[in-house]
Amino acid sequence: MVVFDMRIAIAQIDSIVGDFAGNADKIVRFAVRARAEHAAELVVFPELALCGYPPMDLLDQESFAELSERSLRSLQNRLPRDIAVGVGYVGRNTMASGKALVNSYALLLDGTVAFEQEKTLLPTYDVFDEARYFESARERRVFAWKGERIGIAICEDLWWESENATGFRYAIDPVRELLDRGSTIMLVPSASPFVRGKFEVRRKLAERVASRGGIPVIYANAVGANDSIVFDGRSFVVAPASGSASAGPLGAASLRAVARGFEEDLLLWDSVAGNGKSSPAKAETNELDVIEEALVLGIRGYMQKCGFVRAHLGLSGGIDSALVAYLASRAIGADKLVCFGLPSRFSSEGSRTDARRLAENLGARFVMLPIEGAFEAYLDTLEEVFEGKPFDLAEENLQARIRGTLLMAYSNKFESMLLTTGNKSELAMGYCTLYGDMCGALAPIGDLLKTEVFALCRRINERAIQSDGEPVIPVETLTKPPSAELRPNQTDQDSLPPYDVLDAVLSLHLIDNLSRAEIVERGWTDELASRVVKAVARAEYKRRQAPPVIKVSPRAFGMGRRMPIARSPYEA
Amino acid sequence: MVVFDMRIAIAQIDSIVGDFAGNADKIVRFAVRARAEHAAELVVFPELALCGYPPMDLLDQESFAELSERSLRSLQNRLPRDIAVGVGYVGRNTMASGKALVNSYALLLDGTVAFEQEKTLLPTYDVFDEARYFESARERRVFAWKGERIGIAICEDLWWESENATGFRYAIDPVRELLDRGSTIMLVPSASPFVRGKFEVRRKLAERVASRGGIPVIYANAVGANDSIVFDGRSFVVAPASGSASAGPLGAASLRAVARGFEEDLLLWDSVAGNGKSSPAKAETNELDVIEEALVLGIRGYMQKCGFVRAHLGLSGGIDSALVAYLASRAIGADKLVCFGLPSRFSSEGSRTDARRLAENLGARFVMLPIEGAFEAYLDTLEEVFEGKPFDLAEENLQARIRGTLLMAYSNKFESMLLTTGNKSELAMGYCTLYGDMCGALAPIGDLLKTEVFALCRRINERAIQSDGEPVIPVETLTKPPSAELRPNQTDQDSLPPYDVLDAVLSLHLIDNLSRAEIVERGWTDELASRVVKAVARAEYKRRQAPPVIKVSPRAFGMGRRMPIARSPYEA
Repeated sequence: MVVFDMRIAIAQIDSIVGDFAGNADKIVRFAVRARAEHAAELVVFPELALCGYPPMDLLDQESFAELSERSLRSLQNRLPRDIAVGVGYVGRNTMASGKALVNSYALLLDGTVAFEQEKTLLPTYDVFDEARYFESARERRVFAWKGERIGIAICEDLWWESENATGFRYAIDPVRELLDRGSTIMLVPSASPFVRGKFEVRRKLAERVASRGGIPVIYANAVGANDSIVFDGRSFVVAPASGSASAGPLGAASLRAVARGFEEDLLLWDSVAGNGKSSPAKAETNELDVIEEALVLGIRGYMQKCGFVRAHLGLSGGIDSALVAYLASRAIGADKLVCFGLPSRFSSEGSRTDARRLAENLGARFVMLPIEGAFEAYLDTLEEVFEGKPFDLAEENLQARIRGTLLMAYSNKFESMLLTTGNKSELAMGYCTLYGDMCGALAPIGDLLKTEVFALCRRINERAIQSDGEPVIPVETLTKPPSAELRPNQTDQDSLPPYDVLDAVLSLHLIDNLSRAEIVERGWTDELASRVVKAVARAEYKRRQAPPVIKVSPRAFGMGRRMPIARSPYEA
Repeated sequence: MVVFDMRIAIAQIDSIVGDFAGNADKIVRFAVRARAEHAAELVVFPELALCGYPPMDLLDQESFAELSERSLRSLQNRLPRDIAVGVGYVGRNTMASGKALVNSYALLLDGTVAFEQEKTLLPTYDVFDEARYFESARERRVFAWKGERIGIAICEDLWWESENATGFRYAIDPVRELLDRGSTIMLVPSASPFVRGKFEVRRKLAERVASRGGIPVIYANAVGANDSIVFDGRSFVVAPASGSASAGPLGAASLRAVARGFEEDLLLWDSVAGNGKSSPAKAETNELDVIEEALVLGIRGYMQKCGFVRAHLGLSGGIDSALVAYLASRAIGADKLVCFGLPSRFSSEGSRTDARRLAENLGARFVMLPIEGAFEAYLDTLEEVFEGKPFDLAEENLQARIRGTLLMAYSNKFESMLLTTGNKSELAMGYCTLYGDMCGALAPIGDLLKTEVFALCRRINERAIQSDGEPVIPVETLTKPPSAELRPNQTDQDSLPPYDVLDAVLSLHLIDNLSRAEIVERGWTDELASRVVKAVARAEYKRRQAPPVIKVSPRAFGMGRRMPIARSPYEA
């Protein structure tokens, strides 16, 4: 019986896109720790850890590949000895045809590149554009070392046999080939973005491979936020039941160790001891809690990488801005957050009170800036050109734009980052004002449907009880009917279907990609389906000018959903 | 000697993305005309003419492929008899693996699909995302008909041997295969976007194929505007010198007929007569004139397809807004254009006069809306929160945002489309105000560097002389130093390098993808190169929220240049 015998570390790091020097320093630090603290023989870094993921069109610059290669060479000589270091980097395609680059993974050992494997399956759907830059690996080999045979499947390479979003199969199964070549261990360096439920998908895929091959699978995921994408970390090891390496392909595999979620970590797995020196995992059994962590990291990481220390937002007294304020206070600390009340002539007393109370609960500064003065000045200026036409959307949007302008003035004066508070239901239906409430550098909850916003707020209030016995988000904020308060007695349901209905249809249309006719087949009325599908199509021009949203669903607005603006709303 | 004998029509149509019914109707109309008026035996429509190009993520909806197939079937029975009709459409991939769809081309003849060819080379760079949706053709065949052998190379299929933007070669040369299979004519249905100088690139590629094979090449391009992309039409026929079909691969080929630029056309080419019943080509020898036509169509097409009849914009008295106003008046008629003067306390008398004069020259309505009232109201509202800090960027941007808000209020009240007037140099450097002068549904000159704006205005003024002997764009607008007029005595050159220097460096960085170090190697100072490269990186967050720009360069901002926001400005 062959017992796989190796001390392996997963270095789950947060790389900054394009920061070769900083990322290399971090790789050295983690490798030194893996060797010194854990006596690891192999340390596995994530996919493209050297340049960060996704580098996007920086890859089109010839200098990027040059820097990548230079950085890898200089890294070789800075790493500790007697430990193999697996590092993802951008290499050059040396074949006669195809894209200029490859998504590569090097095993560095004692000052040399001991082995290299390129990525075979290049995700080109959703937020991924890898076929834009990379050529597929020509071949898949295993690295014989210390009596083991190491196979490397980079992220999507594991995905061949999973149903994926666009429902297709790749022509090649890299993992099958690597198993056929006798891999005794499979490394899966990844930059796999967070999506609800994604950890279980990864784990099952890895377990299937581990069971099929009777070998351990080391899944090293990136962590950190990059624009719309949050990498959740949660790297892990799955392995067959003890001794099952001899049992062959049928040994059932299971989870042996998991790294922290949403922060950097160094996870050690000792194959002989049979289980990992696992980091203490956070209590993240509830998926809403995991989403909360993703959004907090999404805000924190974006701000850090963009160089912002302070943030601010407008508090309407409603649930969306309340949630964003709560998330921001967790991300950067309430002392670096300023909340603005921006009441209009249509704002209720309750809204003002709820906004102020939330800021107090969070411990954030609250500033009241009434918009009436600017509103009157605009109406005066526009009086003649408006030709006495009645109050309508123009006046409603004016108020939202005054708020956006005031918040941006604060941003410019104090170098504070404005957070946008819109949710996905609004963005979908165009129930938001371009250059108004859509102003901001980041839309933290732009991928949460309104019903998901409610669910998350209720969940937060279950845990976050103030010393006065009240929950952190004022109860009234959750119980009153949603309203933009841009005209007298307005509620969202004047303009939109009830949110539970709307979100159900939006989910079918946006996530499942169903057309009007298919939504009707699912039992919704033609009138409702048409109304929603048409509104979504019509609002594309607004979304094109929206800030990045933090992706938590399989299909978020932004780079993962690329729609034409000028088009016929076919089948609508 | 074999003489190729066929009457062929190119139907250069403007399809609307997703409008299967409307596009099919148009295809029928053009096919009827081709048969009835020209006795054509074959009519060639552009790539994906049935659904429009680019359909983008509409392709991810299962219903899209269904509709595409249903539309093709119903089209078959509506076409005239005795004429083969080549139509591009979205088909399904019937292979066991790969993406779900194919970019296909059907030859319809007397109620049946007589032949089909799928696209082999799938552009996945710049604005193109074809590998996101389509699988490559498994094989390339020729269609034997009327004694000829018809080969079909769809758009990029022709591009194998050209150097392209990202400098790579495809592994397959579809044209070589089609020639080897004995093609006696090559159809090249395309949706090839306009870019400066692109016609000559297409022509040379087609001539090379025609010369190599000693056969005619029928290049059928799409026409029309789709968001950022303008299809210029200018479909054409190249063929070897008369009788050279017998001379084989060495017969030099040349241009025989060209369809109109920037509008729909039906071009007939009679292979026996030896030349085409060419449409009267417009005088477009000057590349600036061609760019002007592209921008005019870009505005007109976008507005039509989005359902807008009227447009408006702010006139600063400067050259950018002057150019956009001129282009818009050409696109939709001056009677549907409203120009706003939006003077501030810092606006010079000259600016006001120049703005008004331009509107008069164009024959457009001019409305003056001073921003002082709103500006004072904002300063009052913000006084306390600004803590007495000195006038800075915050107050400058306030003014730009008041203008944006006023212009959007008009948009909302009168359903008029706001045009953004920023140029590429500004967008590159971030020398523009988000939610201020960046407001608008479309940025017509967002892909023109400032020096190109000057060149185009000078060219327009050469031709467009008023009855009073003065050029249409006031001379002062071209001669005074560019200024945003957001503080006293401000000029652009307080914040930016001289435009001729800036644009030269921007061109190296944005179009040629050169890094700071490479720009320095070209002879520019390190200080300048660093300043420009850093500013471009820092302004990415603004561009992400910019309206679509009309692409006229090989690398426009938008879908063709995908950059991370949160990143290290590496090498800067």
